[in-house]
Amino acid sequence: MPSTDLKFANADEHRAWLTRQAALPRGWRVGATRFEFQPAEVRKTAKMTITLIAPDKPVESVAAMFTKNAFPGAPVIIGRKRMAAGTPLAAIVINNKVSNVCAPNGVATAERLCERLGQLMNLEEAQILPSSTGVIGWRLPIDFMINALPAAVESLQGKSILPAAEGIVTTDLYPKIRRVELPGGATIVGIAKGAGMIEPNLATMLVYVLTDADIVRNQLQRYLEEAVEESFNCISIDSDTSTSDTVVCASTRAVPCPDLTAFRLGLFQVCSDLAEDVVRNGEGVHHVIRVAVGGAPDYETARAIGKAVVNSPLFQCAVCGNDANVGRLIAAIGKEVGARHEGLDLSGCSIAMGGESIYEGGVFHLDPDKERRLVAHLKAAEMYASVAPKDGLTFVPPMRFPPHERAVEIEIDLGAGDAACLVVGADRSHEYISENADYRS
Amino acid sequence: MPSTDLKFANADEHRAWLTRQAALPRGWRVGATRFEFQPAEVRKTAKMTITLIAPDKPVESVAAMFTKNAFPGAPVIIGRKRMAAGTPLAAIVINNKVSNVCAPNGVATAERLCERLGQLMNLEEAQILPSSTGVIGWRLPIDFMINALPAAVESLQGKSILPAAEGIVTTDLYPKIRRVELPGGATIVGIAKGAGMIEPNLATMLVYVLTDADIVRNQLQRYLEEAVEESFNCISIDSDTSTSDTVVCASTRAVPCPDLTAFRLGLFQVCSDLAEDVVRNGEGVHHVIRVAVGGAPDYETARAIGKAVVNSPLFQCAVCGNDANVGRLIAAIGKEVGARHEGLDLSGCSIAMGGESIYEGGVFHLDPDKERRLVAHLKAAEMYASVAPKDGLTFVPPMRFPPHERAVEIEIDLGAGDAACLVVGADRSHEYISENADYRS
Repeated sequence: MPSTDLKFANADEHRAWLTRQAALPRGWRVGATRFEFQPAEVRKTAKMTITLIAPDKPVESVAAMFTKNAFPGAPVIIGRKRMAAGTPLAAIVINNKVSNVCAPNGVATAERLCERLGQLMNLEEAQILPSSTGVIGWRLPIDFMINALPAAVESLQGKSILPAAEGIVTTDLYPKIRRVELPGGATIVGIAKGAGMIEPNLATMLVYVLTDADIVRNQLQRYLEEAVEESFNCISIDSDTSTSDTVVCASTRAVPCPDLTAFRLGLFQVCSDLAEDVVRNGEGVHHVIRVAVGGAPDYETARAIGKAVVNSPLFQCAVCGNDANVGRLIAAIGKEVGARHEGLDLSGCSIAMGGESIYEGGVFHLDPDKERRLVAHLKAAEMYASVAPKDGLTFVPPMRFPPHERAVEIEIDLGAGDAACLVVGADRSHEYISENADYRS
Repeated sequence: MPSTDLKFANADEHRAWLTRQAALPRGWRVGATRFEFQPAEVRKTAKMTITLIAPDKPVESVAAMFTKNAFPGAPVIIGRKRMAAGTPLAAIVINNKVSNVCAPNGVATAERLCERLGQLMNLEEAQILPSSTGVIGWRLPIDFMINALPAAVESLQGKSILPAAEGIVTTDLYPKIRRVELPGGATIVGIAKGAGMIEPNLATMLVYVLTDADIVRNQLQRYLEEAVEESFNCISIDSDTSTSDTVVCASTRAVPCPDLTAFRLGLFQVCSDLAEDVVRNGEGVHHVIRVAVGGAPDYETARAIGKAVVNSPLFQCAVCGNDANVGRLIAAIGKEVGARHEGLDLSGCSIAMGGESIYEGGVFHLDPDKERRLVAHLKAAEMYASVAPKDGLTFVPPMRFPPHERAVEIEIDLGAGDAACLVVGADRSHEYISENADYRS
């Protein structure tokens, strides 16, 4: 998926690269402000960042996709309404820490925030899109947020998207920015938040793609759906589909875009790069796993089998331990096919890992030398090994940047058709458990 | 699910209880032997136990269910053939450490083991049922196994099933035995192996239920299917359906069984007790989670929603950390309904945990006092807390017995029908990661 084979020796190198990615397309401004508040549900304080993304004047060219989770957050409910009404976009207001899902009066509270921001910036409330991510169940601390809005507005600037990429994160280790420059001078710049509760179903949690390319609204929506289908909808960190997944793409149309194919490919590139960034920065991820499923009767089957592999806890743990336990790979495929693809003939199935054939003609082909090469492939794809925690129990990743873009490469040829899909997932580690056994608390 | 509210202060108390459970029904013998061998696939040695279960003479009353995984092990392929032919059962030969799945010549090798055992015990090869559990992909070390068979036959005895319950385990912390005594003097005694790769689809990995009740073959198969459907098919430890899942139930018919209802209930009791034992002894399990889903349009929907909750990595981690993060519970339900139950109306849904109402009428009902009570419920259900590992990285459970039979109790009323299902699962901990990042190696 990624457009480049990037390597970073340390966090400073990574940040310098992010800064180069961060130049905003024409006609866009972003800003952010951070503050402390008191949640109503627990007896302790917490911190929140409010991030603003705004075109210089309202744009009609805006596309969006939202989660399919049956308990969508209040911002998703509002976003769907705005999109259905064909409303232009004047600003996006994003908060982390509290996701505003199934909270009492959640929709009214989010609308109140939009109303106040509209007054401050002289915008129509209905043209402001709210987004929230964080703890599910808590109410938005609306008084604290309204107090913080003037500082957020004050911080708006048109040079760099980096403050927004940093403002929207929760458990992410680092901000994620990807850009593509198009023939004719237009650019596409995207940012993503997401490190846990990631198996998007129609969109992933909080992705904003800004452009100045002259693309009209309907076209933009079509291109976005196409790009999301084969990028964000093909990844999983932990199989948990968020209640807040949102992808927004909007254009100021400030720069002509004569080559629509270049735009489509560029948008797909930004989306698929960000999708892999989200996985690589997934909670506790040591290894990214790319599963190329081919020879499938249809695309959905190919994707389902790839997802079954990357979502298998046992295979995820084996990869984490650099253990070439390929039996768990077979078990994961067989579980999915046995449960949901009855009648799919697997007699022609063959499987390779790191370029080594491991299964063909109904049986495994394993020996001690191949085992050694498989382990070497796993080790080469490892981003870091666990470091013994200071308190003996709480594992913390020893780095806050991606050292490389290598992955564990798995090829599955089902031998049962012509459809294919590339699914990207990750391993399962002590750092994931440490993050999630006490995140929120 | 469990018939009793057992508590054990230490491993000795637990073993004394197991020993009382272990008396064999009339006409049954078991034996086991352990040895070292050299696998063909890696350069190191490993240990295996061969376990034998045999009636005094072949029994026609035998029932069995096998995995739905599309890559079944060789013993499953053979077992299906034997059952379809209506063959009587003369012996079961079980090995751990190597599961004989998709191994070159796997079926022929398992048949060779049956042939040699038949010669030693003067039994028909076709009346011997093989079972294997362990690493997927490795070949059976058949020469080592044939050498070990005489010692296994020599060890057969008719008093206690404990040697078999101990012989079939792999990563299990302790053996699992459950018994029911029926009116009229017949007994049902079952043993189970299983600690990982557990989300059974028609049966769980290696369960043997022996009885002397006078029940004919067809009836036994029907009662077994009925019992498995609401016991083993309603549990999950890690959502990974094994390639070797097998449940066998057989009867010597030595004792009259006038009360068929008592037998059915007794068989269900043994199966559901063993199913919860399998979860409680699951890899790295700190908390058992019982999800009672009611108000569902049908049984399958109720089970799918219960499974979605216990298989959510984020909810599992929260429970492990005694964190009452009920937002993740809602997210898991919404993920399942959004992806696979389109049109299911959740407006009447209500949810309780530990008897506390947490969600009703479309919104959460949370406050700091309720939070405190929810955390107390989680702590009361905890079996142990992680102990900082000696090497800083490898977590080992600090106990090898179940201290109690409490669970995290969740009630979900979908408000959309009359069907219900009880699903039993577990949390996700550092001990699971440690076990599975290097099990096999």
